[in-house]
Amino acid sequence: MAAVPALNLYAFWRTSATFRVRVALNLKNLPVTETFINMDAGEQRSEAYLKINPLGGLPTLVEAGHPPITQSLAILEFLEETQPLPALLPADRHGRARVRSLCNMLAADTHPLITPRVKKYLTTEAGFDDAAWRRWQTQWFTTGLAAVEQRLSTEAQTGLYCHGDTVGMADICLASVVAVMRVFKIEVHNIPTVDAIVARCSALDAFVRAEPARQVGAPVQ
Amino acid sequence: MAAVPALNLYAFWRTSATFRVRVALNLKNLPVTETFINMDAGEQRSEAYLKINPLGGLPTLVEAGHPPITQSLAILEFLEETQPLPALLPADRHGRARVRSLCNMLAADTHPLITPRVKKYLTTEAGFDDAAWRRWQTQWFTTGLAAVEQRLSTEAQTGLYCHGDTVGMADICLASVVAVMRVFKIEVHNIPTVDAIVARCSALDAFVRAEPARQVGAPVQ
Repeated sequence: MAAVPALNLYAFWRTSATFRVRVALNLKNLPVTETFINMDAGEQRSEAYLKINPLGGLPTLVEAGHPPITQSLAILEFLEETQPLPALLPADRHGRARVRSLCNMLAADTHPLITPRVKKYLTTEAGFDDAAWRRWQTQWFTTGLAAVEQRLSTEAQTGLYCHGDTVGMADICLASVVAVMRVFKIEVHNIPTVDAIVARCSALDAFVRAEPARQVGAPVQ
Repeated sequence: MAAVPALNLYAFWRTSATFRVRVALNLKNLPVTETFINMDAGEQRSEAYLKINPLGGLPTLVEAGHPPITQSLAILEFLEETQPLPALLPADRHGRARVRSLCNMLAADTHPLITPRVKKYLTTEAGFDDAAWRRWQTQWFTTGLAAVEQRLSTEAQTGLYCHGDTVGMADICLASVVAVMRVFKIEVHNIPTVDAIVARCSALDAFVRAEPARQVGAPVQ
Protein backbone atom coordinates (compact mmCIF):
# COMPACT_ATOMS: atom_id res chain seq x y z
CA MET A 1 0.00 0.00 0.00
CA ALA A 2 1.44 3.33 -1.07
CA ALA A 3 -0.02 5.41 1.74
CA VAL A 4 -2.39 4.94 4.65
CA PRO A 5 -5.88 5.80 3.33
CA ALA A 6 -7.96 8.40 5.17
CA LEU A 7 -10.95 6.40 6.41
CA ASN A 8 -14.17 7.48 8.10
CA LEU A 9 -16.69 5.05 9.55
CA TYR A 10 -20.38 5.85 10.03
CA ALA A 11 -21.06 3.79 13.12
CA PHE A 12 -23.33 3.00 16.06
CA TRP A 13 -22.09 1.50 19.30
CA ARG A 14 -24.26 -1.61 19.32
CA THR A 15 -24.43 -3.03 15.81
CA SER A 16 -22.89 -6.35 15.01
CA ALA A 17 -21.85 -5.23 11.53
CA THR A 18 -20.01 -2.19 12.89
CA PHE A 19 -18.19 -4.42 15.39
CA ARG A 20 -16.88 -6.53 12.50
CA VAL A 21 -15.37 -3.56 10.73
CA ARG A 22 -13.89 -2.11 13.92
CA VAL A 23 -12.10 -5.38 14.68
CA ALA A 24 -10.69 -5.61 11.14
CA LEU A 25 -9.46 -2.01 11.29
CA ASN A 26 -7.84 -2.75 14.65
CA LEU A 27 -6.20 -5.98 13.47
CA LYS A 28 -4.80 -4.24 10.40
CA ASN A 29 -3.82 -1.21 12.43
CA LEU A 30 -5.64 1.16 10.07
CA PRO A 31 -6.52 4.53 11.62
CA VAL A 32 -10.13 5.67 11.24
CA THR A 33 -12.36 8.51 12.35
CA GLU A 34 -15.98 7.80 13.31
CA THR A 35 -19.28 9.57 12.66
CA PHE A 36 -21.90 8.54 15.20
CA ILE A 37 -25.33 7.60 13.78
CA ASN A 38 -27.88 7.14 16.57
CA MET A 39 -29.99 4.14 15.54
CA ASP A 40 -32.12 4.40 18.67
CA ALA A 41 -33.13 7.88 17.46
CA GLY A 42 -33.69 6.63 13.89
CA GLU A 43 -30.81 8.64 12.42
CA GLN A 44 -30.05 5.77 10.01
CA ARG A 45 -33.30 6.63 8.24
CA SER A 46 -32.54 10.37 7.99
CA GLU A 47 -32.46 11.90 4.52
CA ALA A 48 -28.78 12.77 4.90
CA TYR A 49 -27.72 9.25 5.89
CA LEU A 50 -29.88 7.52 3.28
CA LYS A 51 -27.89 9.40 0.65
CA ILE A 52 -24.78 7.66 1.94
CA ASN A 53 -26.42 4.27 2.56
CA PRO A 54 -29.81 3.83 0.81
CA LEU A 55 -30.68 0.71 2.81
CA GLY A 56 -30.23 2.67 6.05
CA GLY A 57 -27.84 0.10 7.48
CA LEU A 58 -24.68 0.54 9.49
CA PRO A 59 -21.78 0.79 9.12
CA THR A 60 -20.63 2.69 6.05
CA LEU A 61 -16.93 3.19 5.34
CA VAL A 62 -15.68 6.15 3.33
CA GLU A 63 -12.15 6.46 1.98
CA ALA A 64 -11.51 10.14 1.25
CA GLY A 65 -12.16 10.90 -2.41
CA HIS A 66 -14.10 7.70 -3.09
CA PRO A 67 -17.76 6.64 -2.93
CA PRO A 68 -19.11 5.20 0.35
CA ILE A 69 -18.76 1.45 0.90
CA THR A 70 -21.66 -0.30 2.58
CA GLN A 71 -22.22 -3.86 3.81
CA SER A 72 -19.81 -5.17 6.40
CA LEU A 73 -18.61 -8.20 4.41
CA ALA A 74 -17.83 -6.00 1.40
CA ILE A 75 -15.95 -3.66 3.75
CA LEU A 76 -13.95 -6.55 5.25
CA GLU A 77 -12.92 -7.71 1.75
CA PHE A 78 -12.03 -4.10 0.87
CA LEU A 79 -9.83 -3.76 3.95
CA GLU A 80 -8.17 -7.08 3.09
CA GLU A 81 -7.31 -5.76 -0.38
CA THR A 82 -6.31 -2.32 0.95
CA GLN A 83 -4.02 -3.60 3.69
CA PRO A 84 -3.27 -7.29 3.01
CA LEU A 85 -1.36 -7.89 6.24
CA PRO A 86 -2.16 -9.38 8.63
CA ALA A 87 -4.28 -11.54 6.30
CA LEU A 88 -7.86 -12.20 7.40
CA LEU A 89 -8.37 -14.83 4.68
CA PRO A 90 -6.27 -17.97 4.09
CA ALA A 91 -3.99 -18.13 1.06
CA ASP A 92 -5.57 -21.16 -0.66
CA ARG A 93 -8.86 -20.94 -2.56
CA HIS A 94 -10.51 -23.82 -0.67
CA GLY A 95 -9.57 -22.28 2.66
CA ARG A 96 -10.85 -18.89 1.51
CA ALA A 97 -14.11 -20.50 0.43
CA ARG A 98 -14.53 -22.16 3.82
CA VAL A 99 -13.92 -18.91 5.70
CA ARG A 100 -16.24 -16.94 3.43
CA SER A 101 -18.91 -19.61 3.84
CA LEU A 102 -18.70 -19.39 7.64
CA CYS A 103 -18.85 -15.59 7.37
CA ASN A 104 -22.01 -15.78 5.28
CA MET A 105 -23.68 -18.30 7.60
CA LEU A 106 -23.32 -15.66 10.31
CA ALA A 107 -23.44 -12.27 8.63
CA ALA A 108 -25.88 -13.19 5.85
CA ASP A 109 -28.02 -16.07 7.09
CA THR A 110 -28.26 -15.16 10.78
CA HIS A 111 -27.72 -11.48 11.47
CA PRO A 112 -30.11 -9.90 8.89
CA LEU A 113 -33.02 -11.67 10.59
CA ILE A 114 -32.57 -9.83 13.88
CA THR A 115 -31.95 -6.28 12.65
CA PRO A 116 -33.97 -3.23 13.77
CA ARG A 117 -35.94 -3.02 10.50
CA VAL A 118 -37.15 -6.60 10.95
CA LYS A 119 -38.07 -5.89 14.58
CA LYS A 120 -39.99 -2.82 13.45
CA TYR A 121 -42.02 -4.82 10.94
CA LEU A 122 -42.76 -7.71 13.29
CA THR A 123 -43.83 -5.47 16.17
CA THR A 124 -45.90 -3.01 14.14
CA GLU A 125 -47.29 -5.28 11.40
CA ALA A 126 -47.33 -8.76 12.90
CA GLY A 127 -48.27 -8.10 16.51
CA PHE A 128 -45.02 -9.33 18.04
CA ASP A 129 -44.71 -8.39 21.71
CA ASP A 130 -41.38 -8.44 23.58
CA ALA A 131 -41.66 -12.16 24.32
CA ALA A 132 -42.40 -13.04 20.68
CA TRP A 133 -39.46 -10.91 19.50
CA ARG A 134 -37.21 -12.62 22.02
CA ARG A 135 -38.33 -16.05 20.79
CA TRP A 136 -37.61 -14.90 17.23
CA GLN A 137 -34.14 -13.67 18.17
CA THR A 138 -33.42 -16.90 20.07
CA GLN A 139 -34.62 -19.02 17.13
CA TRP A 140 -32.18 -17.46 14.64
CA PHE A 141 -29.20 -17.06 16.94
CA THR A 142 -29.66 -20.72 17.92
CA THR A 143 -30.12 -21.96 14.35
CA GLY A 144 -27.10 -20.07 13.05
CA LEU A 145 -24.73 -20.80 15.91
CA ALA A 146 -25.71 -24.47 16.15
CA ALA A 147 -24.96 -24.90 12.44
CA VAL A 148 -21.62 -23.13 12.82
CA GLU A 149 -20.84 -25.27 15.91
CA GLN A 150 -21.63 -28.41 13.88
CA ARG A 151 -19.09 -27.33 11.26
CA LEU A 152 -16.38 -26.07 13.61
CA SER A 153 -16.55 -29.15 15.85
CA THR A 154 -16.30 -31.64 12.96
CA GLU A 155 -14.18 -30.01 10.25
CA ALA A 156 -10.46 -30.70 10.22
CA GLN A 157 -9.52 -27.12 9.33
CA THR A 158 -10.75 -25.76 12.66
CA GLY A 159 -7.90 -24.86 15.00
CA LEU A 160 -7.57 -22.46 17.88
CA TYR A 161 -9.69 -20.20 15.70
CA CYS A 162 -12.35 -20.94 13.08
CA HIS A 163 -9.72 -21.69 10.43
CA GLY A 164 -6.38 -22.84 11.74
CA ASP A 165 -4.55 -21.13 14.57
CA THR A 166 -4.68 -17.59 13.22
CA VAL A 167 -7.51 -15.15 13.83
CA GLY A 168 -9.39 -14.18 10.67
CA MET A 169 -12.57 -13.08 8.97
CA ALA A 170 -14.74 -15.97 10.22
CA ASP A 171 -13.72 -15.27 13.81
CA ILE A 172 -14.67 -11.64 13.35
CA CYS A 173 -18.14 -12.62 12.10
CA LEU A 174 -18.58 -15.20 14.84
CA ALA A 175 -17.54 -12.84 17.63
CA SER A 176 -19.77 -10.09 16.17
CA VAL A 177 -22.88 -12.26 16.29
CA VAL A 178 -22.10 -13.42 19.83
CA ALA A 179 -21.40 -9.82 20.90
CA VAL A 180 -24.80 -8.57 19.73
CA MET A 181 -26.46 -11.65 21.22
CA ARG A 182 -24.95 -10.71 24.57
CA VAL A 183 -26.16 -7.12 24.21
CA PHE A 184 -29.68 -8.54 23.91
CA LYS A 185 -29.02 -11.02 26.76
CA ILE A 186 -29.90 -14.05 24.60
CA GLU A 187 -28.15 -17.29 25.51
CA VAL A 188 -27.40 -20.23 23.21
CA HIS A 189 -26.20 -23.40 24.89
CA ASN A 190 -24.22 -26.47 23.76
CA ILE A 191 -21.87 -24.62 21.44
CA PRO A 192 -18.53 -25.37 23.16
CA THR A 193 -16.32 -24.86 20.10
CA VAL A 194 -17.95 -21.51 19.36
CA ASP A 195 -17.62 -20.50 23.00
CA ALA A 196 -13.91 -21.43 23.11
CA ILE A 197 -13.10 -19.51 19.93
CA VAL A 198 -15.06 -16.44 21.02
CA ALA A 199 -13.25 -16.54 24.37
CA ARG A 200 -9.91 -16.53 22.54
CA CYS A 201 -11.04 -13.60 20.40
CA SER A 202 -12.27 -11.72 23.46
CA ALA A 203 -8.77 -11.84 24.89
CA LEU A 204 -7.29 -10.06 21.87
CA ASP A 205 -6.80 -6.32 22.06
CA ALA A 206 -8.34 -5.77 18.59
CA PHE A 207 -11.60 -7.35 19.79
CA VAL A 208 -11.56 -5.75 23.24
CA ARG A 209 -11.29 -2.27 21.72
CA ALA A 210 -14.25 -3.03 19.41
CA GLU A 211 -16.62 -4.18 22.18
CA PRO A 212 -20.00 -2.47 21.89
CA ALA A 213 -20.00 -1.30 25.53
CA ARG A 214 -16.71 0.59 24.98
CA GLN A 215 -17.95 2.68 22.06
CA VAL A 216 -19.18 6.27 21.99
CA GLY A 217 -22.90 6.34 22.71
CA ALA A 218 -23.04 3.10 24.72
CA PRO A 219 -25.03 3.30 27.97
CA VAL A 220 -22.91 3.67 31.09
CA GLN A 221 -22.82 0.25 32.81
CA MET B 1 -5.99 -23.05 -14.04
CA ALA B 2 -4.09 -26.28 -14.54
CA ALA B 3 -7.09 -28.51 -15.20
CA VAL B 4 -10.87 -28.22 -15.20
CA PRO B 5 -12.02 -29.18 -11.68
CA ALA B 6 -14.68 -31.91 -11.27
CA LEU B 7 -17.62 -30.05 -9.74
CA ASN B 8 -20.92 -31.30 -8.35
CA LEU B 9 -23.74 -29.00 -7.29
CA TYR B 10 -26.44 -29.97 -4.78
CA ALA B 11 -29.33 -28.00 -6.17
CA PHE B 12 -33.07 -27.36 -6.30
CA TRP B 13 -34.84 -25.87 -9.30
CA ARG B 14 -36.36 -22.86 -7.56
CA THR B 15 -33.82 -21.38 -5.17
CA SER B 16 -32.36 -17.98 -5.77
CA ALA B 17 -28.98 -18.98 -4.39
CA THR B 18 -28.73 -21.97 -6.73
CA PHE B 19 -29.60 -19.72 -9.67
CA ARG B 20 -26.62 -17.49 -8.81
CA VAL B 21 -24.17 -20.36 -8.89
CA ARG B 22 -25.62 -21.82 -12.09
CA VAL B 23 -25.20 -18.48 -13.88
CA ALA B 24 -21.59 -18.13 -12.72
CA LEU B 25 -20.77 -21.69 -13.82
CA ASN B 26 -22.37 -20.95 -17.21
CA LEU B 27 -20.54 -17.63 -17.65
CA LYS B 28 -17.21 -19.25 -16.80
CA ASN B 29 -18.03 -22.29 -18.92
CA LEU B 30 -17.27 -24.67 -16.05
CA PRO B 31 -18.87 -28.10 -16.43
CA VAL B 32 -20.84 -29.38 -13.44
CA THR B 33 -23.00 -32.34 -12.47
CA GLU B 34 -26.07 -31.79 -10.28
CA THR B 35 -27.59 -33.69 -7.38
CA PHE B 36 -31.27 -32.82 -6.95
CA ILE B 37 -32.39 -32.00 -3.40
CA ASN B 38 -36.18 -31.71 -3.21
CA MET B 39 -36.87 -28.78 -0.86
CA ASP B 40 -40.62 -29.20 -1.23
CA ALA B 41 -40.19 -32.69 0.25
CA GLY B 42 -37.85 -31.39 2.98
CA GLU B 43 -34.79 -33.25 1.68
CA GLN B 44 -32.57 -30.32 2.67
CA ARG B 45 -33.25 -31.29 6.28
CA SER B 46 -32.41 -34.99 5.79
CA GLU B 47 -29.62 -36.42 7.92
CA ALA B 48 -27.53 -37.14 4.83
CA TYR B 49 -27.77 -33.60 3.43
CA LEU B 50 -27.22 -31.91 6.81
CA LYS B 51 -23.83 -33.64 6.93
CA ILE B 52 -22.93 -31.80 3.73
CA ASN B 53 -24.59 -28.51 4.67
CA PRO B 54 -25.42 -28.18 8.41
CA LEU B 55 -27.64 -25.13 7.87
CA GLY B 56 -29.78 -27.13 5.39
CA GLY B 57 -29.47 -24.49 2.70
CA LEU B 58 -28.96 -24.83 -1.02
CA PRO B 59 -26.83 -24.95 -3.03
CA THR B 60 -23.65 -26.74 -1.98
CA LEU B 61 -20.73 -27.07 -4.39
CA VAL B 62 -18.26 -29.93 -4.12
CA GLU B 63 -14.98 -30.08 -5.98
CA ALA B 64 -13.85 -33.70 -6.08
CA GLY B 65 -11.41 -34.43 -3.27
CA HIS B 66 -12.26 -31.30 -1.28
CA PRO B 67 -14.76 -30.40 1.46
CA PRO B 68 -18.21 -29.08 0.44
CA ILE B 69 -18.55 -25.32 -0.11
CA THR B 70 -21.78 -23.72 1.08
CA GLN B 71 -23.22 -20.21 0.80
CA SER B 72 -23.74 -18.84 -2.69
CA LEU B 73 -21.56 -15.74 -2.27
CA ALA B 74 -18.66 -17.84 -1.01
CA ILE B 75 -19.17 -20.15 -4.00
CA LEU B 76 -19.17 -17.21 -6.43
CA GLU B 77 -15.87 -15.94 -4.98
CA PHE B 78 -14.47 -19.50 -5.16
CA LEU B 79 -15.44 -19.80 -8.83
CA GLU B 80 -13.86 -16.40 -9.50
CA GLU B 81 -10.59 -17.61 -7.98
CA THR B 82 -10.82 -21.03 -9.67
CA GLN B 83 -11.53 -19.71 -13.15
CA PRO B 84 -10.69 -15.98 -13.22
CA LEU B 85 -12.00 -15.36 -16.75
CA PRO B 86 -14.40 -13.96 -17.61
CA ALA B 87 -14.04 -11.84 -14.46
CA LEU B 88 -17.18 -11.35 -12.38
CA LEU B 89 -15.52 -8.69 -10.21
CA PRO B 90 -13.85 -5.46 -11.39
CA ALA B 91 -10.08 -5.15 -11.22
CA ASP B 92 -9.88 -2.15 -8.83
CA ARG B 93 -10.52 -2.48 -5.10
CA HIS B 94 -13.13 0.29 -4.98
CA GLY B 95 -15.05 -1.27 -7.84
CA ARG B 96 -14.82 -4.68 -6.20
CA ALA B 97 -16.14 -3.18 -2.95
CA ARG B 98 -19.09 -1.61 -4.78
CA VAL B 99 -20.01 -4.87 -6.50
CA ARG B 100 -19.66 -6.90 -3.30
CA SER B 101 -21.78 -4.34 -1.46
CA LEU B 102 -24.57 -4.63 -4.04
CA CYS B 103 -24.30 -8.43 -3.83
CA ASN B 104 -24.71 -8.32 -0.07
CA MET B 105 -27.67 -5.92 -0.22
CA LEU B 106 -29.42 -8.60 -2.27
CA ALA B 107 -28.05 -11.96 -1.17
CA ALA B 108 -27.49 -11.09 2.50
CA ASP B 109 -29.94 -8.32 3.42
CA THR B 110 -32.89 -9.32 1.23
CA HIS B 111 -32.94 -12.98 0.30
CA PRO B 112 -32.40 -14.61 3.76
CA LEU B 113 -35.64 -12.99 4.94
CA ILE B 114 -37.81 -14.89 2.47
CA THR B 115 -36.31 -18.39 2.71
CA PRO B 116 -38.34 -21.55 3.50
CA ARG B 117 -37.07 -21.76 7.09
CA VAL B 118 -38.33 -18.24 7.80
CA LYS B 119 -41.68 -19.06 6.19
CA LYS B 120 -41.92 -22.19 8.32
CA TYR B 121 -41.35 -20.21 11.52
CA LEU B 122 -43.75 -17.41 10.66
CA THR B 123 -46.55 -19.75 9.59
CA THR B 124 -46.20 -22.24 12.44
CA GLU B 125 -45.08 -19.98 15.31
CA ALA B 126 -46.40 -16.53 14.44
CA GLY B 127 -49.76 -17.32 12.86
CA PHE B 128 -48.91 -15.99 9.39
CA ASP B 129 -51.50 -16.99 6.80
CA ASP B 130 -50.83 -16.85 3.05
CA ALA B 131 -51.73 -13.16 2.85
CA ALA B 132 -49.44 -12.23 5.76
CA TRP B 133 -46.58 -14.22 4.24
CA ARG B 134 -47.15 -12.46 0.91
CA ARG B 135 -47.06 -9.05 2.61
CA TRP B 136 -43.81 -10.09 4.32
CA GLN B 137 -42.27 -11.20 1.02
CA THR B 138 -43.41 -8.00 -0.69
CA GLN B 139 -42.01 -5.86 2.14
CA TRP B 140 -38.46 -7.26 1.84
CA PHE B 141 -38.32 -7.58 -1.93
CA THR B 142 -39.52 -3.96 -2.14
CA THR B 143 -37.12 -2.68 0.51
CA GLY B 144 -34.12 -4.41 -1.02
CA LEU B 145 -34.83 -3.65 -4.65
CA ALA B 146 -35.79 -0.01 -3.98
CA ALA B 147 -32.48 0.52 -2.19
CA VAL B 148 -30.58 -1.11 -5.04
CA GLU B 149 -32.53 0.99 -7.57
CA GLN B 150 -31.61 4.12 -5.62
CA ARG B 151 -27.94 3.22 -5.93
CA LEU B 152 -27.97 2.02 -9.53
CA SER B 153 -29.92 5.03 -10.75
CA THR B 154 -27.65 7.59 -9.07
CA GLU B 155 -24.14 6.12 -9.00
CA ALA B 156 -21.78 6.95 -11.84
CA GLN B 157 -20.35 3.44 -12.05
CA THR B 158 -23.64 1.96 -13.26
CA GLY B 159 -23.59 1.14 -16.97
CA LEU B 160 -25.49 -1.31 -19.11
CA TYR B 161 -25.07 -3.61 -16.13
CA CYS B 162 -24.77 -2.93 -12.38
CA HIS B 163 -21.10 -2.01 -12.69
CA GLY B 164 -20.02 -0.77 -16.09
CA ASP B 165 -20.97 -2.44 -19.33
CA THR B 166 -19.87 -5.97 -18.44
CA VAL B 167 -22.03 -8.52 -16.70
CA GLY B 168 -20.75 -9.51 -13.26
CA MET B 169 -21.43 -10.70 -9.74
CA ALA B 170 -23.88 -7.94 -8.81
CA ASP B 171 -25.97 -8.66 -11.91
CA ILE B 172 -26.07 -12.32 -10.95
CA CYS B 173 -27.36 -11.46 -7.47
CA LEU B 174 -29.86 -8.95 -8.83
CA ALA B 175 -31.24 -11.33 -11.43
CA SER B 176 -31.43 -14.14 -8.85
CA VAL B 177 -33.59 -12.10 -6.49
CA VAL B 178 -35.87 -10.99 -9.32
CA ALA B 179 -36.09 -14.58 -10.61
CA VAL B 180 -37.31 -15.95 -7.28
CA MET B 181 -39.65 -12.98 -6.89
CA ARG B 182 -41.23 -13.93 -10.21
CA VAL B 183 -41.56 -17.54 -9.10
CA PHE B 184 -43.63 -16.26 -6.17
CA LYS B 185 -45.50 -13.82 -8.45
CA ILE B 186 -44.53 -10.78 -6.34
CA GLU B 187 -44.26 -7.48 -8.21
CA VAL B 188 -42.14 -4.47 -7.27
CA HIS B 189 -42.80 -1.28 -9.20
CA ASN B 190 -40.79 1.88 -9.96
CA ILE B 191 -37.42 0.18 -10.32
CA PRO B 192 -36.65 1.03 -13.97
CA THR B 193 -32.87 0.68 -13.72
CA VAL B 194 -33.20 -2.72 -12.06
CA ASP B 195 -35.76 -3.79 -14.67
CA ALA B 196 -33.52 -2.71 -17.56
CA ILE B 197 -30.47 -4.54 -16.20
CA VAL B 198 -32.43 -7.70 -15.44
CA ALA B 199 -33.87 -7.59 -18.98
CA ARG B 200 -30.32 -7.43 -20.38
CA CYS B 201 -29.27 -10.36 -18.19
CA SER B 202 -32.33 -12.34 -19.24
CA ALA B 203 -31.20 -12.11 -22.85
CA LEU B 204 -27.86 -13.76 -22.09
CA ASP B 205 -27.54 -17.49 -22.65
CA ALA B 206 -25.83 -18.03 -19.26
CA PHE B 207 -28.89 -16.61 -17.49
CA VAL B 208 -31.46 -18.28 -19.74
CA ARG B 209 -29.98 -21.70 -19.06
CA ALA B 210 -30.12 -21.02 -15.29
CA GLU B 211 -33.81 -20.05 -15.24
CA PRO B 212 -35.68 -21.89 -12.47
CA ALA B 213 -38.41 -23.12 -14.83
CA ARG B 214 -35.82 -24.87 -17.03
CA GLN B 215 -34.28 -26.95 -14.25
CA VAL B 216 -34.85 -30.58 -13.34
CA GLY B 217 -37.78 -30.82 -10.93
CA ALA B 218 -39.54 -27.65 -12.05
CA PRO B 219 -43.28 -28.00 -12.60
CA VAL B 220 -44.33 -28.34 -16.25
CA GLN B 221 -45.72 -24.97 -17.36
